[in-house]
Amino acid sequence: MADPRFFAKAGPFTLAELASRCGADLASGVDPETCVVDVAALDAAGPEHLSFLDNKKYVEAFSRSRAGACLVHRDMARWAPPGMALLFCSDAYRAYAQIATAFYPPEAVVPGIAAGAAIDPTAVVDGRVRVEPGAVIGAGAAIGPGCLIGPNAVIGPGVVLGEDCVIGANASLSHCILGNRVRIYPGARIGQDGFGFAMGPAGHLKVPQLGRVLIHDDVEIGANTTIDRGAGPDTVIGAGCKIDNLVQIGHNVQLGRGCVIVAQVGISGSTRLDDFVAVGGQAGITGHLRIGAGARIAAQSGVMRDVEAGGTVGGSPAVPMKEWLKQAAVLGQLARKKGR
Amino acid sequence: MADPRFFAKAGPFTLAELASRCGADLASGVDPETCVVDVAALDAAGPEHLSFLDNKKYVEAFSRSRAGACLVHRDMARWAPPGMALLFCSDAYRAYAQIATAFYPPEAVVPGIAAGAAIDPTAVVDGRVRVEPGAVIGAGAAIGPGCLIGPNAVIGPGVVLGEDCVIGANASLSHCILGNRVRIYPGARIGQDGFGFAMGPAGHLKVPQLGRVLIHDDVEIGANTTIDRGAGPDTVIGAGCKIDNLVQIGHNVQLGRGCVIVAQVGISGSTRLDDFVAVGGQAGITGHLRIGAGARIAAQSGVMRDVEAGGTVGGSPAVPMKEWLKQAAVLGQLARKKGR
Amino acid sequence: MADPRFFAKAGPFTLAELASRCGADLASGVDPETCVVDVAALDAAGPEHLSFLDNKKYVEAFSRSRAGACLVHRDMARWAPPGMALLFCSDAYRAYAQIATAFYPPEAVVPGIAAGAAIDPTAVVDGRVRVEPGAVIGAGAAIGPGCLIGPNAVIGPGVVLGEDCVIGANASLSHCILGNRVRIYPGARIGQDGFGFAMGPAGHLKVPQLGRVLIHDDVEIGANTTIDRGAGPDTVIGAGCKIDNLVQIGHNVQLGRGCVIVAQVGISGSTRLDDFVAVGGQAGITGHLRIGAGARIAAQSGVMRDVEAGGTVGGSPAVPMKEWLKQAAVLGQLARKKGR
Repeated sequence: MADPRFFAKAGPFTLAELASRCGADLASGVDPETCVVDVAALDAAGPEHLSFLDNKKYVEAFSRSRAGACLVHRDMARWAPPGMALLFCSDAYRAYAQIATAFYPPEAVVPGIAAGAAIDPTAVVDGRVRVEPGAVIGAGAAIGPGCLIGPNAVIGPGVVLGEDCVIGANASLSHCILGNRVRIYPGARIGQDGFGFAMGPAGHLKVPQLGRVLIHDDVEIGANTTIDRGAGPDTVIGAGCKIDNLVQIGHNVQLGRGCVIVAQVGISGSTRLDDFVAVGGQAGITGHLRIGAGARIAAQSGVMRDVEAGGTVGGSPAVPMKEWLKQAAVLGQLARKKGR
Repeated sequence: MADPRFFAKAGPFTLAELASRCGADLASGVDPETCVVDVAALDAAGPEHLSFLDNKKYVEAFSRSRAGACLVHRDMARWAPPGMALLFCSDAYRAYAQIATAFYPPEAVVPGIAAGAAIDPTAVVDGRVRVEPGAVIGAGAAIGPGCLIGPNAVIGPGVVLGEDCVIGANASLSHCILGNRVRIYPGARIGQDGFGFAMGPAGHLKVPQLGRVLIHDDVEIGANTTIDRGAGPDTVIGAGCKIDNLVQIGHNVQLGRGCVIVAQVGISGSTRLDDFVAVGGQAGITGHLRIGAGARIAAQSGVMRDVEAGGTVGGSPAVPMKEWLKQAAVLGQLARKKGR
Repeated sequence: MADPRFFAKAGPFTLAELASRCGADLASGVDPETCVVDVAALDAAGPEHLSFLDNKKYVEAFSRSRAGACLVHRDMARWAPPGMALLFCSDAYRAYAQIATAFYPPEAVVPGIAAGAAIDPTAVVDGRVRVEPGAVIGAGAAIGPGCLIGPNAVIGPGVVLGEDCVIGANASLSHCILGNRVRIYPGARIGQDGFGFAMGPAGHLKVPQLGRVLIHDDVEIGANTTIDRGAGPDTVIGAGCKIDNLVQIGHNVQLGRGCVIVAQVGISGSTRLDDFVAVGGQAGITGHLRIGAGARIAAQSGVMRDVEAGGTVGGSPAVPMKEWLKQAAVLGQLARKKGR
């Protein structure tokens, strides 16, 4: 089970309750009133635990598992060990996420303002907000109900947070408007000036950055990630985007809904990603591009041209994935020839 | 116009005033007493706004724009819509930067020490400094007039700041000396130990890092960027350098004047960049190299050798730009041949 | 000498004392009672300084050096200038690290809780701990003797620190257990949720991250580096690992003992590095891999397959180092041929 110093566990739950939470069907013969007390990995689970199988790679571990119950696709049932209670579902990982959340629900926000917090008298902070020690909230900021402002976080003047947002420790926000259920991880930097200079041999002249960052509902922004505000237009992060740690997003970038941006990616100014684009770790996308809906960009790619909707690219400079794989293959062959 | 929750606008200004601020010439027939109330992009501007055209790509938007006035190169005048007041200048983007700064001047620093700040009694803080809540200033530090120390920023013992420096929220400085008008963005880390160990199978022994970071006038250092102090010599950032977010600068690195370092670049220990070097995003430069004045390094390059003054390199390992483009072309051809 | 505003110097020391501290042998004829007052580089040292030679590249500087004493391998003795007192040792850089530490010992931790710190009444903080202004220590946390909690650092609920740990300014820790002598640099983020979602067109569902981060003795973690906690298993950093700035370590990653991870590296979830693996700057390692003991991964590599113990790889996608060098050579030849 999870370390009780860090995690508070709920339950036990009956299989009937759990199945209804994740839309699973109990296999025939399973007693719906059977209780489980926790989730656990296949190889660590005992009779009192529920586990899951979502990857054929783990079929053997599934067959050997001592888990009392297991989330699994119906097609995998024949590999189950005798006596295991099966809960059938089409996407076992998604079902696991729902059940793990039942056992380990997000901690409820207990309203209250810590003694050490500094809140400007003109800020509007809802009564159901929690503000941790050392947090600073600037003039005219507005914090919606259910928000948690972490220790030593800084909310700049005029910043607006919707409902149920979580701002991590030591994060800082300025010049931005957040929707509901936005989670900003520790140390993220949102809304600072973009990197805009009129370059010249007599010195680089700063161009005022007059836009904002708009962050829609259900977005997560990783630890130490940086998102600059727009130069004139806004920088926009669409609903449901998930952004990992140490990502850089330049001024005027627009992300559509549900984009997934893995760690250490950099997206240069004014580039636009349509809905559900996925970008692998350490990839870079140059400025003023358009990446079509559902496109997939491989890790470490260097994207210098638009990518069409549904396209998949890799390499630096990035080319269609098939071409990239061929390039790697042909280069390997040539090098081996040379080696002889 | 810019969101008034975040930006305070000055003006209106007459065209005569604005032209004199940026060194532009009014086209013949333009009434110098015409007032404009704001800046705006070509496609968003109305008759009361001033816009700018600095890129041929936008000539069409220029011709269709409803902007009352526009900064433009004399050669572009013929594409102007009827009635638009033209301000001729050789570099419209630079002129725009100056005029946007007139409308949106940097906020004046209102001196004062917030209640929640912790200032060591031996620190010397000028009377014209603003210290925000939660900021910490260590023993013997010296903060010059006009500086702004952001909320929860940490200025370590002995650190020296010149005049008119801005230290962002949650940034931390130690073992460093700053000139005037230096801007450190939120979360930047300046002056911590470099990565110096005497490696060995019995354990890696830490080598004391006995240098400092010297930051000259008019430098900007981006959000969550890290600059380590020297190991014995100093790490030096020359006047007018502009460093973007999430950049890593190792111990003993020296940057000349006016270098531009884009986001997520890494520069390894003891490497020296001469004046006005430009480094594209996510590039890496290995240690102990010399990069000549005015050299340009493409995004995602991996530089493993010295680069001559004025040189342009790309690729990983980096080669002269022309060679890199040929490499990409020839590899693409081979892969396509293979595909048939 | 090091800037006295930032560094407190000890000494002077006799050569006999210094030789015994680093296991060096005095050359014949050297007076063991000779005093030196500081360390200095070969080209900066005077008669009162001790220097070191660890690289043949600097033999000339050694021959010209005015240093009174020098750490050097016995084989280099013949290049010494007349009158220089030689201290023979097998690893001059390691010996220098020990002697520089004698002159500039780590500052002793002066116990005390700053007025501005916020410590939860249920936290257990040893009497020999120093807590700087603005630091926040959560409920149930335990801080061992000799620890230094830097200004505005945040120690989350339940976090455990062993003895003599140093937590840098503005760093934040949650869901983690630290051994002894662990150093966390400013702005590092330890223990936040990993990047775990059940992806889908109806939205990406967060998967509870129920593991911890375990950090063993003598680990250093660089500025603004991020280490996510495990999803179920723990993320583990082995004893003596040295991790540079801006590194990303995903959930469930395991590092063995003595790994060296250079700046801006990214290691994806569930990958395991065995003992003494070295990873060059900006390299990326994909998830669920095994990197064998002593393997070396070149800077900017993109590792997509397991690496055997002692293996050396480079390139993206990474291949054995020899192959990578051949690839670069053959590609260069082809491009030059094309150019004619």
